[in-house]
Amino acid sequence: MLTKTKIQSKLKQILPKKNVLTTIEECYVYSQDGTNGVESKVLPDVVVFPETIEEIQQIMSFANKHKIPVIARGAGTNLVGACIPVRGGIILNFTKMDKILEINKTNMTARVQAGVVIGQLQDKVSESGLFFPPDPSNLRVSTIGGAIAQSAGGPKTFKYGTTKDYILGLKVVLANGQLMEVGVNTIKNATGYHLEQLFIGSEGTLGIVVEATLKLIPKPETTRVIMAYFDDVDSATNSVVKMIDANLYPSTIDFMNKNTIETVEKFYKIGLNTSKEAALIIEIDGFESSMDTQINRLKDVLETSQASDIVISYSQEEQDKLWTARRASFGATAKLSPDVVTNDMIVPRENISKLVNGINDICEKYSLKVCIVGHIGDGNIHPQIALDLNNPTEASNYEKAKSEFYKLTLKLNGVLSAEHGIGLEKKAFLSDSVSPLALEYMKKMKNVFDPNNILNPDKIF
Amino acid sequence: MLTKTKIQSKLKQILPKKNVLTTIEECYVYSQDGTNGVESKVLPDVVVFPETIEEIQQIMSFANKHKIPVIARGAGTNLVGACIPVRGGIILNFTKMDKILEINKTNMTARVQAGVVIGQLQDKVSESGLFFPPDPSNLRVSTIGGAIAQSAGGPKTFKYGTTKDYILGLKVVLANGQLMEVGVNTIKNATGYHLEQLFIGSEGTLGIVVEATLKLIPKPETTRVIMAYFDDVDSATNSVVKMIDANLYPSTIDFMNKNTIETVEKFYKIGLNTSKEAALIIEIDGFESSMDTQINRLKDVLETSQASDIVISYSQEEQDKLWTARRASFGATAKLSPDVVTNDMIVPRENISKLVNGINDICEKYSLKVCIVGHIGDGNIHPQIALDLNNPTEASNYEKAKSEFYKLTLKLNGVLSAEHGIGLEKKAFLSDSVSPLALEYMKKMKNVFDPNNILNPDKIF
Repeated sequence: MLTKTKIQSKLKQILPKKNVLTTIEECYVYSQDGTNGVESKVLPDVVVFPETIEEIQQIMSFANKHKIPVIARGAGTNLVGACIPVRGGIILNFTKMDKILEINKTNMTARVQAGVVIGQLQDKVSESGLFFPPDPSNLRVSTIGGAIAQSAGGPKTFKYGTTKDYILGLKVVLANGQLMEVGVNTIKNATGYHLEQLFIGSEGTLGIVVEATLKLIPKPETTRVIMAYFDDVDSATNSVVKMIDANLYPSTIDFMNKNTIETVEKFYKIGLNTSKEAALIIEIDGFESSMDTQINRLKDVLETSQASDIVISYSQEEQDKLWTARRASFGATAKLSPDVVTNDMIVPRENISKLVNGINDICEKYSLKVCIVGHIGDGNIHPQIALDLNNPTEASNYEKAKSEFYKLTLKLNGVLSAEHGIGLEKKAFLSDSVSPLALEYMKKMKNVFDPNNILNPDKIF
Repeated sequence: MLTKTKIQSKLKQILPKKNVLTTIEECYVYSQDGTNGVESKVLPDVVVFPETIEEIQQIMSFANKHKIPVIARGAGTNLVGACIPVRGGIILNFTKMDKILEINKTNMTARVQAGVVIGQLQDKVSESGLFFPPDPSNLRVSTIGGAIAQSAGGPKTFKYGTTKDYILGLKVVLANGQLMEVGVNTIKNATGYHLEQLFIGSEGTLGIVVEATLKLIPKPETTRVIMAYFDDVDSATNSVVKMIDANLYPSTIDFMNKNTIETVEKFYKIGLNTSKEAALIIEIDGFESSMDTQINRLKDVLETSQASDIVISYSQEEQDKLWTARRASFGATAKLSPDVVTNDMIVPRENISKLVNGINDICEKYSLKVCIVGHIGDGNIHPQIALDLNNPTEASNYEKAKSEFYKLTLKLNGVLSAEHGIGLEKKAFLSDSVSPLALEYMKKMKNVFDPNNILNPDKIF
C-alpha cells in the first residue's frame, strides 16, 4: 500500500493540481455524506475532480495496481452512507463532469456525463417538449450518476418507473481502468446480456459509471395536484386500489401521516388540516381534455373512501404549494430535534397500512418522534425520525426500532430498500432480504468486475 | 458423455414416462424451431415436459454432472434458432408449466410459470381491469419464458417498453440444479445488484427461468387505431417526430411499405390502398374524453405530413380489421414463395428512413422479394423476405443481403437485434454490435453461471 503522500503526488500528475484536494480540512468534508448517524473513522487520502474519462481511466489503473480504494461521489446526498470512505482512498468527485452532451428530440434520448444534476437535466429536457420522469426528492442537487448508483426512484415511480427504466446505455470505467460501453442508444436491445442493468444499484462497487444514454418520453400536456385528508390510514391506502378500479393512473400517490401534517404546518403555516390522521397528495397528468374526467372520477373515489377537505390545484403555483407540504416534511422534521434520520422500506401495496401502523407502534414503543411520508402508490414508506444522535438512549432506541422496522417489512413480504440502496446502513440486514444464493452470485459478480475489491469497498456486502 | 439410452432412462426415472419423448420422430420435431433457414445436424437425445421446479432441478443436476446440453423451450416461435439443439442433449419443454399462479389486483402483479402463453395471460389480466403490455406478434402461442429469454418487445414498446420493463422477480434453476430467487415482488428494489435483469435476453444460456413475478399496470380506458397512407417513406417516418412535438404519445406506431400493402391486399382483400408507398398503423389510448383531442391532433400531424386516406377505427371490430392488415403481413409474404424469412434491426429514430430505403435497395440488388414492416416509432424494422431456400442462388443472395443489412444498420448507429435475439442466426455478427470488452464480460457472466457450458450451448456467442 502506498503512503498518502505518494498517492496524492501521483494524482497531481494525472490531474491539474486545482482538481486535487489534499488538506485535512478538505478531506474531512468528504469523509461523510448525506447520511446522518453513520460515522467514518478515517478520512480519504485525497479528493479529486476529474474532468475527462481518460483521467478516470488513469486513476483507476493506478488505484488497481496499488489496491487503493476508490469511491465515486455525485452530490453525496444518499442516505445509506454509500459515499463514505471507510478504508480511506480516493474520492472521485463528479462535480466537474456535469455536461449534458446531447438531447436528441427525434430519438428521444439524452447523453449525459455522470455528474449532471437531475433537476437541470429535467429542465433542459422539458425545453425540448420531452420528459425525464425519475425525480428523487433531492433532484435539485443530486446527480444522474448517484441515481444510477442507488437505483433511485422518486414520487413519479407509480406511473413512470425508476431510474432503471430510463437507462439505455452506459460508459463504465472498470476497476482496471478499461473503458467499457454497455447497452445501446436505441429504445430496444436484444443483443446478449443486459450488462448495463447490472451497474444500476451497484453503488459504485462494480465500475465507475462515467456517461449514460437515457430514454426520454413525450411530456404530458398538463398536470393537476389533488390533496385529500383521511380519518385513518386504512381509508387512505384503500383508496389507491379504488383508483386502479376506476381506470385512473396517477403519476404520483404520496402520503403524509398526522405527525407529518402537524410538523409541516407548525413550521411552514401552509394551511394544512392538522386534525386528520393522513393526507394523500395525488398528481395526475395527460391531455387537458381528460382532466375533468380524471378529477371527477378521483373525487368520487376519494369521497367513497371517506376523504375530506379535497383540494384541487389547477395552476402551477397552486400545485407547487401543495407539493411544498410534502417536500418540506424532511426539513420540518429536522427542526424538531438536533438530528433527523430517514429510512426506506417497501411492501406489496396490500400491506401498506400494516407497515405504516406498525412503524408508528414501533416508534411509540421507543419514544421516537416519527413523521411518516412515502410513495404509497408504490407501497414505499420513509419514516423520518427526529432525534438527538448524541443522546445514547435515543441513538440506541433508533437502532432497536430500525431493526424492528426491517423485521416488520420482511414479515409483510417486503424489501429492505426501494430507492435508497444498502450502503453501510443496511448491509448487516441484506441477507434478510436477498436469498443466500442470490447474494452468493452478487458476490461472484463483484469478484468478476473488481477482483481487488477497490471499488467502494465494504458497501452493500 | 453418457449414451443417449442412459440419458433417456435416467430422465424416465426423474419424470413420469408420459412426459419423456424418445422416438426419432418425436426428437426430430424438436430439432428445429420457428426459424427458417437454420438447420440442425443433430437431434436432441430426449425431449421432456417437466411439471415441477423440483423435476427441473433434478434434471439440471444430472445434466451438469454429465455435461449434457439442456435447451429450454417455450413455444419455439423464436426467429434466430435459439431453441435448436446443435449439440443434442435435453429439450426442456415448458408446455406443462403454463399456470398463472396469481394475479394480485391490489399489488398490480402477476406470478406465472415460465410456460404461460402471453395472450392467455393478457386476457386474464384484462379481466381484472389490468394490463400487461408486452405483446410479441405471436403472443397467442408464445410464452412468457420465451419472451424473457429473447428480450421480446412488440408493437406497444413505443409507449410501454418491452418485457424487461415488466419483470420484478424471477425463480431460476441454475446449471448445477440450485434454485435461485432474484428480484422482488414490489415495484421498486434497491437491495444490491439487479440479477433478474441479467437473465432477460440471455436465451437460456445463464439459467432456466421457471417462474416470474410481473409488474402490471392499470388498463387504459379506451383505444383507437388510425391508419394513414403516404407517398414516400420519409413523410411517414417524419410524422413520428411531429407526433412527439404535438404532445402525442401513441402506444403503437407501426409501418408497412408498398410491397407489404400490395401483398396483404393480394391475399386478404382487406381494401388497402395499394397505390401508396407506405402506411402507418397508429394506436392511441387513454381516457375516452381525450380521444377527440388525440385524434384531431393526430389528423393534423398526418395531414401536414402529406398523409392521405386516413382511416379511424372506433369499434373493437374496426380496430381488429386494421390490425389484421399488419398482422397478416408475415402470412401473406409466406404465400409468395416456398419460404419466408424475417429479420430484426433497430436504429435511432432519426435514421429509420435510411434503413428502410437501404434495405429496399439491398433487396433489389439481390433480386429478393421483400415486405418491410416494423415498429417505426421505435426505429425497429422487420424485413420479411419471400424466397426458396432450396434454390442455391436465392439462399446465397439472402445471406449476402443479410450481411449488408447488418452493415447498413451499424453504419446508421443501430443495433443488430431489437427484440428477436441473437441465437445461432446472428452470433457471427454479435461482435460487430457489442463492444469487445462488453463481449468479454458477457462471456465471464456465462462462465460464472454455467462453467460447464451446458445451458443452450453455442447460442449468442
